[in-house]
Amino acid sequence: MAATDEHRTNWGRWGDADERGTLNLLTPETVAKALARPRSGRVFSLGTPIGKRGVNTPGRNPTWHVTTTVEDPHAPGNGRAEDVLVLHTHAHTHIDGLAHGWFDGTIYNGIDAKKAVGRGGSNVAGVDKYGPIIGTALLLDVTVGRDPFEPGEPVTADALEQAAARADIPAAEADIVLVRVGWTELFWSDRERYESGSPGLSPEATEWVAALDPAVVGMDTSAIEPQPAPPGVHPLAVHRRFLHDLGTPLIESLALAEPGAAGVTSGLFVATPLNIERGLGSPLNPVLVA
Amino acid sequence: MAATDEHRTNWGRWGDADERGTLNLLTPETVAKALARPRSGRVFSLGTPIGKRGVNTPGRNPTWHVTTTVEDPHAPGNGRAEDVLVLHTHAHTHIDGLAHGWFDGTIYNGIDAKKAVGRGGSNVAGVDKYGPIIGTALLLDVTVGRDPFEPGEPVTADALEQAAARADIPAAEADIVLVRVGWTELFWSDRERYESGSPGLSPEATEWVAALDPAVVGMDTSAIEPQPAPPGVHPLAVHRRFLHDLGTPLIESLALAEPGAAGVTSGLFVATPLNIERGLGSPLNPVLVA
Amino acid sequence: MAATDEHRTNWGRWGDADERGTLNLLTPETVAKALARPRSGRVFSLGTPIGKRGVNTPGRNPTWHVTTTVEDPHAPGNGRAEDVLVLHTHAHTHIDGLAHGWFDGTIYNGIDAKKAVGRGGSNVAGVDKYGPIIGTALLLDVTVGRDPFEPGEPVTADALEQAAARADIPAAEADIVLVRVGWTELFWSDRERYESGSPGLSPEATEWVAALDPAVVGMDTSAIEPQPAPPGVHPLAVHRRFLHDLGTPLIESLALAEPGAAGVTSGLFVATPLNIERGLGSPLNPVLVA
Amino acid sequence: MAATDEHRTNWGRWGDADERGTLNLLTPETVAKALARPRSGRVFSLGTPIGKRGVNTPGRNPTWHVTTTVEDPHAPGNGRAEDVLVLHTHAHTHIDGLAHGWFDGTIYNGIDAKKAVGRGGSNVAGVDKYGPIIGTALLLDVTVGRDPFEPGEPVTADALEQAAARADIPAAEADIVLVRVGWTELFWSDRERYESGSPGLSPEATEWVAALDPAVVGMDTSAIEPQPAPPGVHPLAVHRRFLHDLGTPLIESLALAEPGAAGVTSGLFVATPLNIERGLGSPLNPVLVA
Repeated sequence: MAATDEHRTNWGRWGDADERGTLNLLTPETVAKALARPRSGRVFSLGTPIGKRGVNTPGRNPTWHVTTTVEDPHAPGNGRAEDVLVLHTHAHTHIDGLAHGWFDGTIYNGIDAKKAVGRGGSNVAGVDKYGPIIGTALLLDVTVGRDPFEPGEPVTADALEQAAARADIPAAEADIVLVRVGWTELFWSDRERYESGSPGLSPEATEWVAALDPAVVGMDTSAIEPQPAPPGVHPLAVHRRFLHDLGTPLIESLALAEPGAAGVTSGLFVATPLNIERGLGSPLNPVLVA
Repeated sequence: MAATDEHRTNWGRWGDADERGTLNLLTPETVAKALARPRSGRVFSLGTPIGKRGVNTPGRNPTWHVTTTVEDPHAPGNGRAEDVLVLHTHAHTHIDGLAHGWFDGTIYNGIDAKKAVGRGGSNVAGVDKYGPIIGTALLLDVTVGRDPFEPGEPVTADALEQAAARADIPAAEADIVLVRVGWTELFWSDRERYESGSPGLSPEATEWVAALDPAVVGMDTSAIEPQPAPPGVHPLAVHRRFLHDLGTPLIESLALAEPGAAGVTSGLFVATPLNIERGLGSPLNPVLVA
Repeated sequence: MAATDEHRTNWGRWGDADERGTLNLLTPETVAKALARPRSGRVFSLGTPIGKRGVNTPGRNPTWHVTTTVEDPHAPGNGRAEDVLVLHTHAHTHIDGLAHGWFDGTIYNGIDAKKAVGRGGSNVAGVDKYGPIIGTALLLDVTVGRDPFEPGEPVTADALEQAAARADIPAAEADIVLVRVGWTELFWSDRERYESGSPGLSPEATEWVAALDPAVVGMDTSAIEPQPAPPGVHPLAVHRRFLHDLGTPLIESLALAEPGAAGVTSGLFVATPLNIERGLGSPLNPVLVA
Repeated sequence: MAATDEHRTNWGRWGDADERGTLNLLTPETVAKALARPRSGRVFSLGTPIGKRGVNTPGRNPTWHVTTTVEDPHAPGNGRAEDVLVLHTHAHTHIDGLAHGWFDGTIYNGIDAKKAVGRGGSNVAGVDKYGPIIGTALLLDVTVGRDPFEPGEPVTADALEQAAARADIPAAEADIVLVRVGWTELFWSDRERYESGSPGLSPEATEWVAALDPAVVGMDTSAIEPQPAPPGVHPLAVHRRFLHDLGTPLIESLALAEPGAAGVTSGLFVATPLNIERGLGSPLNPVLVA
């Protein structure tokens, strides 16, 4: 585990030309360890539905799913159908590219944002550089034993600490840190509440996670930060900390209700971003094997 | 292994209401076995790039990748960028839904095609019913020790048999059967040859694979069948056999050059179709861990 | 004017190879007459907004309007912005191609629908065959002097007759017949009422219009027919009559409130469908000059 | 006619809140005059095809035209088909919005570009403010009596002057100035030449046109400026002059071969941009009536 220093960054840690940030922490050794984690072989799908009921990421257009059908003119009763998709890569369950956000003119590794991002997308650190993500996940379900979170409510470092204490692996063994606040599922069950904001990591909680030196961080909200932002906290503070300072990809809008209900606290995590050249993000359907 | 009977179907095998076909063969037990396969922990990404250099599936429009950028008006130097994607689900590396093709008016399990597919997509057996795909892959590289395949050339059952004899697991232990003919990579190295057609499974080879009773079949061509079709062979014969008769999803346009070059013949295979409600297919970036 | 015969069709009227239907009625002579119609030079725009407030055609996806921005890296303060549009051609104010609908296996002129429409669009009678539409418009405002229409309420032949009697040109001189029922504007002022259906032409009213032998028919609803359809009336009866039998393009969702409020009953009408090769329809922003 | 002063701008000419620039010059009186121009009633369509053969604007993605088909399940032989379009507003024949380009931080009328253009598009001076464009067109065909233009070759003020001398109306009576260099048609007949650049207005020619104080300027190239730019000339000099300084919309990629071949030098021009809220441009299919 790295030092718990809020001024720590990973700039230069893997060289000036690095485009993968903390994904460099995933090695054949950590992959082998992760593959050995599952006990039951039970499989959880962590991606939210892409469909008619709307897009669970504020400010993005509803995804188009258009069906095209062709009958074989020479063989009545034969035909085929396909889909056309129009979607934001930062809608539904998705992973942020390292160039998705910039702060004070730079992205991760100190790269000039004007060079990093252009008309053709992510000139450096695109999601096509990520490759498959395979690791040991720690699932911190902070909804256990308490009232539902409120929009804008911070998840504290204490809450994470307590959830970690309930987990069946030491937090230090986690490659991927997932935090569950019970939010993604509200999109279908209580749209009004869902749209009023979301809980998110407090600055201390952010540092608590950062200190674990994770390869990837994910949450079941569309923002990771509390929304609306508490007084004095930058609304993109967590994005800045992970994407910009630490080069740690964020996964948003994860569907964590099922593994949460099953009491799963760790497992094998696999996510395979689409190989989008110069992509600034990718839709994703991660899997957790407990 | 099921009987090698070209009239065999899987209709009714998992009940009349089944929508997942041979994916039912993937169980916690087969998942656990598959997770134990990898020896080196080396990870191969099997999805082709989605980008400016074109779409490697004939007849589909080039994918759009549009970048949107927003500067924070209150904080110069801060901003974010995202992508918009417009794509066919049956372009690039993708998995076919079981309702993607119909023959004699029916899809898998004898469901009336007119009921199965409508304006909203796949009313039954959509890709959202697939869930994560985790299993033991057998990689049959039939390019070994021979001249390059020609467009339209059939891959014979013998060739598969010989490739299987070179594999480091018995064919019978495979959940997923992947066939490599050395084609996907031609899209970038020899566009003209790529577009002139592709090799594909002969009817006997199709039955050879079917007899293994695989959960999923994949190949490094955009069609699985030989293109153009040999005389007397239906151009969609393999699709009919797997999707329609056996309920076996097909994965097309896999990038198999890297594991092929590394001599990999088996491993853990993970693919997570996007959770597209009523989807007739999904883009995919499968991973093979050797 | 042609005979008022509900069995009359225009099949063959302009030859078996015709793809433009009643647009053939627009000639340099009718264009010259139409250009001489305006008295005040006042210009009315008849297209509804394409924007964030939704798509006023039931069953279509909301139009995407994505903004892309590029700063000139060599000249701070210089840059440009553009839009990407994703839209249905049959959303917003639009014109139907003659192959948009088929009945008993045929489109206009008796062409086999399976030949007329394929994967690439409208193999015959596409909107790219329409060309610019310039003619004398008769605007029949049937809302005058009565209570608002109800959803599903038929517009009668009598109502059209009375509106025609109020017009400042004889109905027989009209190239384009526009009917106003006061509906399009409800999309913004009373969404619930708008979505509950719409008034439309009764079978007798349809024949009354057909007897005028118009080149084009337009209305301020998304359907022309009453929605929901009255008992015993086919929900696409007007489409069948005009598109299929008579080869008369229909324009839907016209914004007619402004010319209606101004008491305009005739004028020069210009509409220029986009030159979409094989298009089955086109968005449109017609203009009326009074 | 306004003074021929290259430092002249139209900022403030129609008030500080104006969003329509020189379109304000189109009045009921000029409309009435324009309607009286045509002699033959012959109609020319000036929009290029939107189709499979590509997009004739460099740097834009090929337009998608997807066909969707629905059979009526209750009435065999009945059905309907529609299109989905995905396109850049600045592809094919199109009109630029006044906020399409900014220079030294401002757009037309001195509006701060950062306020004028945002994530939702054109906050001021969007194409939805344009309304229908009806006026007298002067068509200056500078290809007459000379060798074909070369890519990057400037169109001189002299060439415009001579073309104007051949026209059947005085240049001063024109509302809309169209310049033909014979380029748009090369996209289909000589793709290589088309893509190597295009002729365009020289600085003096730009001022010659500007001195006519036109409402709109159009050309049969995708850029108006010479491409590549001659030494010492800014590659967007014409855009700057018309959009930014003068508030004059530009129409690009006009199809002028037909009226050119017919010797047409003036006529009624009608163009109706789509009513795209906050649009930065619009596809267009203008019409010229001679």
